[in-house]
Amino acid sequence: MSTLIKNISSLVTIHSCSSPFKAGKMMRDIGEIKDGALLFGEEIEWLGTTQAANEKLTSGSISPDKIIDARGKTIIPGFVDSHTHIVFAGSRANEFARRLRGATYREIAESGGGIQTTVKATREASIEELVENGRMLALSALKHGTTAIEIKSGYGLSIESEMKMLRAIKILKQELPIHVSATFMGAHDFPPEYKDNHQKYVDLICNEMLPAVAAEGLAEYCDAFVDQGYYTIAQAEKIMETACNFGMKIKMHCDELACVGAAELAGKLHAASADHLLYISDEGIQALKESGTVATLLPGTAYFIRLPYAPARKLIDAGAIVALATDCNPGSCFTENMQLILSLAVINMQMTAEEALTAATLNGAAALGLSDSMGSLEAGKKANFLILDVPTYEDLFYHFGINHVEHVFVNGRKVV
Amino acid sequence: MSTLIKNISSLVTIHSCSSPFKAGKMMRDIGEIKDGALLFGEEIEWLGTTQAANEKLTSGSISPDKIIDARGKTIIPGFVDSHTHIVFAGSRANEFARRLRGATYREIAESGGGIQTTVKATREASIEELVENGRMLALSALKHGTTAIEIKSGYGLSIESEMKMLRAIKILKQELPIHVSATFMGAHDFPPEYKDNHQKYVDLICNEMLPAVAAEGLAEYCDAFVDQGYYTIAQAEKIMETACNFGMKIKMHCDELACVGAAELAGKLHAASADHLLYISDEGIQALKESGTVATLLPGTAYFIRLPYAPARKLIDAGAIVALATDCNPGSCFTENMQLILSLAVINMQMTAEEALTAATLNGAAALGLSDSMGSLEAGKKANFLILDVPTYEDLFYHFGINHVEHVFVNGRKVV
Repeated sequence: MSTLIKNISSLVTIHSCSSPFKAGKMMRDIGEIKDGALLFGEEIEWLGTTQAANEKLTSGSISPDKIIDARGKTIIPGFVDSHTHIVFAGSRANEFARRLRGATYREIAESGGGIQTTVKATREASIEELVENGRMLALSALKHGTTAIEIKSGYGLSIESEMKMLRAIKILKQELPIHVSATFMGAHDFPPEYKDNHQKYVDLICNEMLPAVAAEGLAEYCDAFVDQGYYTIAQAEKIMETACNFGMKIKMHCDELACVGAAELAGKLHAASADHLLYISDEGIQALKESGTVATLLPGTAYFIRLPYAPARKLIDAGAIVALATDCNPGSCFTENMQLILSLAVINMQMTAEEALTAATLNGAAALGLSDSMGSLEAGKKANFLILDVPTYEDLFYHFGINHVEHVFVNGRKVV
Repeated sequence: MSTLIKNISSLVTIHSCSSPFKAGKMMRDIGEIKDGALLFGEEIEWLGTTQAANEKLTSGSISPDKIIDARGKTIIPGFVDSHTHIVFAGSRANEFARRLRGATYREIAESGGGIQTTVKATREASIEELVENGRMLALSALKHGTTAIEIKSGYGLSIESEMKMLRAIKILKQELPIHVSATFMGAHDFPPEYKDNHQKYVDLICNEMLPAVAAEGLAEYCDAFVDQGYYTIAQAEKIMETACNFGMKIKMHCDELACVGAAELAGKLHAASADHLLYISDEGIQALKESGTVATLLPGTAYFIRLPYAPARKLIDAGAIVALATDCNPGSCFTENMQLILSLAVINMQMTAEEALTAATLNGAAALGLSDSMGSLEAGKKANFLILDVPTYEDLFYHFGINHVEHVFVNGRKVV
């Protein structure tokens, strides 16, 4: 069953050419085809101009089962949201409203708020509740254009509850219509039981959690929060080396609250991605560039908790591979909408529309090792794309705050 | 036909008590009823707790035709968007993308861009095209919770094309399911024909445009852009006094680009509202407070064109009446989504969730002289309200970037 979409006002391919990602200046080259056409089954079979498609139809070299007209519409690759925490329990809405009324983080933490609220609720929740919450958010993300999503554990912080989270992610992976990547993040924070003995918890992660996660094959990635007051460079290095020995790939929350040299470590360990990077040093930027580690920026978080934004321009201008993701989570950034992330990226991080699109598609896929099959529209890649109700990709940025996704195709099937 | 909605998790009334608006500290008092109930026909008949509603049902003192369960939902008054420019023609998407790639305003203006692009397209457009564009945006605004909207002329800048815009707004007023207020804004900019003779254009506004607008009864308000490089205090005063003589009320774009004392003039003239106010002086704040002029803040514009935000806290703390609106327009802020404006207000202007809700409902209504019939949920007011898919009003701010409107009621009728 093959379908041809014709008369696409703006067809954005993000064509990756020889490289599975785009770094630096290359991010501006989004391979737009005006009045484009797209032929696909489960995978993309061919793309070009409508005129070329008409010639192929006339000559009989293609004979699609179905032809769709997309006059006035834009087609772009589906978003790859490579950093989320959408499996959790409990709400921190009231805590957020208190914060708006002037309560400080310390006051909220002292009255039992903060991440520990989510840890407590997640530990108490059934796996069904976790799946239900994650499903709701993933389906909402899909309606806003996300066709592949990464989900982290990290609100259990005990072997049982981390395994419960990862099993919930596994269920979502099986039942959701979009691709799901799973990340183990036992090192998200320290659990209350180990608040005075961090080293013992690091040992627990390395000696018990990672072997158990690996035995069930529950996670492709291992992540840790490497920052002031959280995991040290030495602790992170030990966790990451152990994870590598179990065949997992590496992601790291780096330098979000202070410059601690976490990005340098991510580069040294050839992590798949280094995320946040609000306080990344110049050495950190060089390290990421040299290792080919994707710099994943999360402007929703800087917005929501009023932090400075990551130095996107500096990273891109230095030639790094920059990706954009939501960081959707119940504490510091509760949004699953990648279109809003694009807006924040161009307005508050001075990225261009073209760079932001590349970062949210191909480079997001690269951060999940998926860029050989997703993230751009090219023959042989999965037919994962969005039909937007706007005549040019520029309108996606210009007319902001609105969900412009009209339809979503995943593996060639219309799911929205 | 009366309907009772029961078991409303969070019913936000914004009860106005004796005053048709809320100023300063009073903005935090949103009159939330937990587990609330709402009885309405075209107007609100009664509201209270579900328990009280059940007692009334049992005693037979109310007998609604229909009962709806709103467990897990929040109900708030419909948003009143008191400042928009949604009637226009043409797109400036490409100009915006160029700006993101580094083009300056001057470069864009010199290559024929900026507001003159919209003026040219609007002059050339048919009235049907203007109505169609405005209708699309107003209906999208409605889907995001706007139940009353103000629309300005000001992209014609000639007598014929300003009248054409106002007639388009009149058609929208007749056909849209929401309330529309019309504002004449011939003094939005200077047209190219008068770029070297501003005074002559001011005379045209006063001697020809205003009489023509008044003769057809096309506008309730007159507005002018009083700022550096635009209308001077003296020009604005002349225009406003003329408008008053024709029975129109006053709104003014004040101190958006520089502090020129426009807010002081708005106070002196007892304008209904002074809008933008990014550079308002302390004297301006006092003037607005003393005159009871609504200070209408438009954080979407500050966001979109990267300006500093208006001093919302200073205005509220000084006891002013603060409203929030979108400023939806094709150049400096292309969004019709009031929920995004609420998010920007709490994140970037340090307003509380409660202040933002009051500003977007009751105080928006006050800026349009409608607060006796709209903007809060009270017996006798129009049944204009939103059913949100969240359990508390706090979630509307906490879970951001998503359209939380499930249903919209206008005059008691479900329109979304």
